Amino acid sequence: MANKTSWLWYPGDFEIHQGMLQNFKREERGMGWPAYWYIDDCNRNVNFKRKYNLTSSTSFTVYAKGTGYVDINGTKNKLNQPLTCEAGDNTIQVFVGSTTGLPTIFIEGDVVKSDDGWIASNFVDELPAGSDPLFHDKQQDPNVIEYQQKEIHYVSSKAVNGGMLFDFGRAVNGTLNLKLTDVHSVTLCYGESETEALDVEMCYYKQENVTAATDIRKRAFRFIFIPAVAKNSVEVTAIHEYIPKQNKAEFTSDNAVINKVWNVSAETLNLCSDLFFIDGIKRDRWIWAGDAYQANFMNEYSFFDEDIDKRTLLALRGQNDIKQHIDTIVDYSMLWVIGILNHYEMSKDKAFLEIIYPKMKSMVEYFVAQTNDKGFIYGRENDWIFVDWSEIDKEGTVAAEQILLLQVYQTILACGKVLGEDVTEYNTKYDQLYQNVMKYFWDEEKGAFIDSYESGKRHVTRHANIFAILFDMVDEDKKQSILTNVLLNDQITQITTPYFKFFEQDALCKMGQQHRVYQVLLDYWGGMLDKGAVTFWEEFDPTKSGKDMYEMYGDPYGKSLCHAWGASPLYLLGRYFVGLKPTKPGYETFEVEPKLDEFDTLHSVMPVKNGSVIIDKKGKTLNIVASRNGGTVKYGGHSYPLNAGEPVTINN
Amino acid sequence: MANKTSWLWYPGDFEIHQGMLQNFKREERGMGWPAYWYIDDCNRNVNFKRKYNLTSSTSFTVYAKGTGYVDINGTKNKLNQPLTCEAGDNTIQVFVGSTTGLPTIFIEGDVVKSDDGWIASNFVDELPAGSDPLFHDKQQDPNVIEYQQKEIHYVSSKAVNGGMLFDFGRAVNGTLNLKLTDVHSVTLCYGESETEALDVEMCYYKQENVTAATDIRKRAFRFIFIPAVAKNSVEVTAIHEYIPKQNKAEFTSDNAVINKVWNVSAETLNLCSDLFFIDGIKRDRWIWAGDAYQANFMNEYSFFDEDIDKRTLLALRGQNDIKQHIDTIVDYSMLWVIGILNHYEMSKDKAFLEIIYPKMKSMVEYFVAQTNDKGFIYGRENDWIFVDWSEIDKEGTVAAEQILLLQVYQTILACGKVLGEDVTEYNTKYDQLYQNVMKYFWDEEKGAFIDSYESGKRHVTRHANIFAILFDMVDEDKKQSILTNVLLNDQITQITTPYFKFFEQDALCKMGQQHRVYQVLLDYWGGMLDKGAVTFWEEFDPTKSGKDMYEMYGDPYGKSLCHAWGASPLYLLGRYFVGLKPTKPGYETFEVEPKLDEFDTLHSVMPVKNGSVIIDKKGKTLNIVASRNGGTVKYGGHSYPLNAGEPVTINN
Repeated sequence: MANKTSWLWYPGDFEIHQGMLQNFKREERGMGWPAYWYIDDCNRNVNFKRKYNLTSSTSFTVYAKGTGYVDINGTKNKLNQPLTCEAGDNTIQVFVGSTTGLPTIFIEGDVVKSDDGWIASNFVDELPAGSDPLFHDKQQDPNVIEYQQKEIHYVSSKAVNGGMLFDFGRAVNGTLNLKLTDVHSVTLCYGESETEALDVEMCYYKQENVTAATDIRKRAFRFIFIPAVAKNSVEVTAIHEYIPKQNKAEFTSDNAVINKVWNVSAETLNLCSDLFFIDGIKRDRWIWAGDAYQANFMNEYSFFDEDIDKRTLLALRGQNDIKQHIDTIVDYSMLWVIGILNHYEMSKDKAFLEIIYPKMKSMVEYFVAQTNDKGFIYGRENDWIFVDWSEIDKEGTVAAEQILLLQVYQTILACGKVLGEDVTEYNTKYDQLYQNVMKYFWDEEKGAFIDSYESGKRHVTRHANIFAILFDMVDEDKKQSILTNVLLNDQITQITTPYFKFFEQDALCKMGQQHRVYQVLLDYWGGMLDKGAVTFWEEFDPTKSGKDMYEMYGDPYGKSLCHAWGASPLYLLGRYFVGLKPTKPGYETFEVEPKLDEFDTLHSVMPVKNGSVIIDKKGKTLNIVASRNGGTVKYGGHSYPLNAGEPVTINN
Repeated sequence: MANKTSWLWYPGDFEIHQGMLQNFKREERGMGWPAYWYIDDCNRNVNFKRKYNLTSSTSFTVYAKGTGYVDINGTKNKLNQPLTCEAGDNTIQVFVGSTTGLPTIFIEGDVVKSDDGWIASNFVDELPAGSDPLFHDKQQDPNVIEYQQKEIHYVSSKAVNGGMLFDFGRAVNGTLNLKLTDVHSVTLCYGESETEALDVEMCYYKQENVTAATDIRKRAFRFIFIPAVAKNSVEVTAIHEYIPKQNKAEFTSDNAVINKVWNVSAETLNLCSDLFFIDGIKRDRWIWAGDAYQANFMNEYSFFDEDIDKRTLLALRGQNDIKQHIDTIVDYSMLWVIGILNHYEMSKDKAFLEIIYPKMKSMVEYFVAQTNDKGFIYGRENDWIFVDWSEIDKEGTVAAEQILLLQVYQTILACGKVLGEDVTEYNTKYDQLYQNVMKYFWDEEKGAFIDSYESGKRHVTRHANIFAILFDMVDEDKKQSILTNVLLNDQITQITTPYFKFFEQDALCKMGQQHRVYQVLLDYWGGMLDKGAVTFWEEFDPTKSGKDMYEMYGDPYGKSLCHAWGASPLYLLGRYFVGLKPTKPGYETFEVEPKLDEFDTLHSVMPVKNGSVIIDKKGKTLNIVASRNGGTVKYGGHSYPLNAGEPVTINN
């Protein structure tokens, strides 16, 4: 929190409360579909406290959402009216209870005000109060998210099937304004695709008996079909709702397809993140830890929005007591922990680390409690050992989960060190687990990790092997072995889910396979563009066409056509083609190692913490300039210091 | 739950949610005063499940408060519309999330309906769904308590201090209807006493700028003063709000003072209990475990309302995870556990025991975790070792807390046995603690328990000694020793709080000191009647008069004049003078042992589970009749079986 007057709350409560609301926002064919796991809410009863030593008397007003009072040196005072503290030592406490929403306060005053320094308590724990840059004005209510609205006019309309079809030409997440002439009420059929909107029976969203006065729920769509109306009897305007954020990155090259892949990726990620990273805007609208983990990486190479990261991490974890794994999935809980390290490396936000650390530690302890005598993590009743939708041999303990647990230990070791916490015990746990992972799961003959050692089947899938590369769990020889024996081995079952494709492409790039990934960008993402995609999909199978393209999970329109993980080209292009990465937390030092062979000309702007890097390629000339110090350009086996405002030019 | 269609919820959630609302209902001089402890709320996301084997197809409708859907054999269906299940095996699940209130469902149907047999899950634990006799109709909403309203007209009014004073002649807990003539707005000054209402500056409740259209908050009062209005310019009617319940007891004797003490006690308890036992109707309006523990005993001898007992126990305990001691007080947590045994002995409600048992056990484990190597319970940081407001030597571990812990172990041993749980470990803990309590806290020379053995002061207060008698922790010789050396010893600091006076009178009666307690009834409770009490007070000091009578906690009107524990004569008269008590749970067997020497004629009706006992005394003749079997009359060293409808007549 900058030292600016803000609405304050018990730390995490805003995110947990809004996260709860988010996880109740799913809708399917007129039914609400709450997420199917335990859902926390914010604290109901909060105390805020601060001591001031005043040199002269000062006045202030406390605004609150909830019932309560202001205690000044032991005397009760009313909310919402000017109060005075005299010179000297003063202890101010604000007590606020809210029966339905977030207990929160705003203090207006010259000296006594709701800035940095307030302590919040839920009567169990005391922590520095939480705040959010979105809420800085006393007129606001942090229980109400103030979406900006933008009128979107349809780009085309046509009379079809006895009704009217409107195409807004883009994905909209919002409501509709209707003008009805000669007709009292209509039915609204929504579609991310034209096919879906025209399917009056089965479209995912539909609202019947809609008059000009009806409240129309916020939904995601591109097309609206209104059956049984004549041309000119209905006019529709979409009202898109969003929280503005700045795209800090640019990517323009001589390849128009890649340029469009970049832009549509940015559009997709933008739509799938406002308060939180959600999986998709039509479906599920839930906060999934695995999806959010990936969105964090894409965000780093586009919006560089630390606030969404933080909100999502806090919302996913919930209150202190752990009732079950995040989203019920063991590996998602582990990715949540690992994601904190990613966020720290991007932001160097120690204040956030202090807030999240106790919850990270208790989560790690929750894992430890379900490890066996070899240090392997196993699933208990109601734990979902997911990894991926694939034929993984899950008998006994599973390799992919152990690699994640190794990185979990690395995360708490790194974060604990930043905070000066004693984390030596995790070194021991790491060492034991590492030795046993190599002993039991590394198969020397296959030159790869096997899924399960207990089954005796020695089955190899890509998953654990990909994680081992990504988290640098093996030496260069073994990485090459995995590349050859697994990643580039067609005998090994292909990754079929876009969720895990992210990790696979990441690993391939890391192993220098940019040319392969470039082709995937053209084929897979370019393939969606060929199908008319305005945002990237949850899944794409180029062999499907027509109505079949939209089916998923046994639902004809189950597929989400604006899905966060579809935006992964932002990360792949930024991290591995432009080649930017932090080498010390918060980009205190960073590297640019361009791999731009596929492009003849290119202009790209990439964000770094508190700055940006501009990379230009024109034929054989590379030009790189950064707005701040700390950079190094690596190219052709050479390193070039990259200082603020001093371009590095390389001629091949 | 009777097998009747009811609104269903996750068990405990209704009580926890309403308890949260209750603990936010306190008001002081225009300010909200939330209770100063951690407050739980209900689950936000609940699943209800049941399997049916149907002989023919059947239809039903699911109503819900919240967002969600009905899953029939894996297919989603809408709420609020007729649904059909076919013959054969059917699994029905209802998913409901509520962002602000209680997720709850009502199912209307011939076969499929919301009666006994539904399982509720918060996605962590599965338990039989909860319900409450107040909510049996699909038109209802368990988020809204339907108070009955009764118009109360003032019994007198007078022009005074330039305004109008209205006396309603009784304690009202409700709102006001105002008729204003020639005046646009007024100020309402409330008083439990006339003195308070007339104190425009300092009265506890005041509402300013009230017009005929103003929403007037529910408050407790007897007097209303409206300053600065002429006679005839304002008319006031009170609207008392209550949940009807039946007073199942009667007490009429030849002593008019005692009769009035009885009736005013019943009025006091009635007002201080609607959904829950609260401490007082004006202040605090909070649910305190110590106060509720006592109210339970009074309830058993008057309203015999098991529902209030159950709601209060569930609300006090909150959700599974224990964040702190109930109301932050270690002894209150222990009284909560012990109160469950009282409730079971009164009700024999095994179904409730099954619901509460896991929460009782985790509470007992919470105590065990704060015992030392001698088995003594000690206070940790933020734990309040209360016992009573008195000069208790609290150095190290404290005797009164150990006696309570012994009774806690007795409670879990007894309740565990009923449920067939393995509780043998608590036998061991009980034995160790018992031996150490006697070894370290029993002072043979003083013939009493000392407060602390660690301080070396051997200080004796009444508290531990009273508990030892009440819970039969010592043999008859030691009880007599305590009676002589402590209870009847004026050298030992007197009990000054009405809270602990309850326990003291209880112990005195138990030791056969009815004649002393009778005098206390006349002096203490009769003394309040002499001061014009229409309900019994939080505290009474006969040496005080005028405005001083109403002062407490440093506040001129801090004293609550309608306070639950003021109603203890109900218990004392019923339990020890009429002499009724259960000797097996649920009054399967019970005793009536009248000690009515102070009365020449008396007619009393006392409730027992599913019945009543009528006791009449006329001069030397006692006549006792019960509506059901199981009773025994004990009198003059003899026992007489008391069978249904067969009067036992005893002539002295």
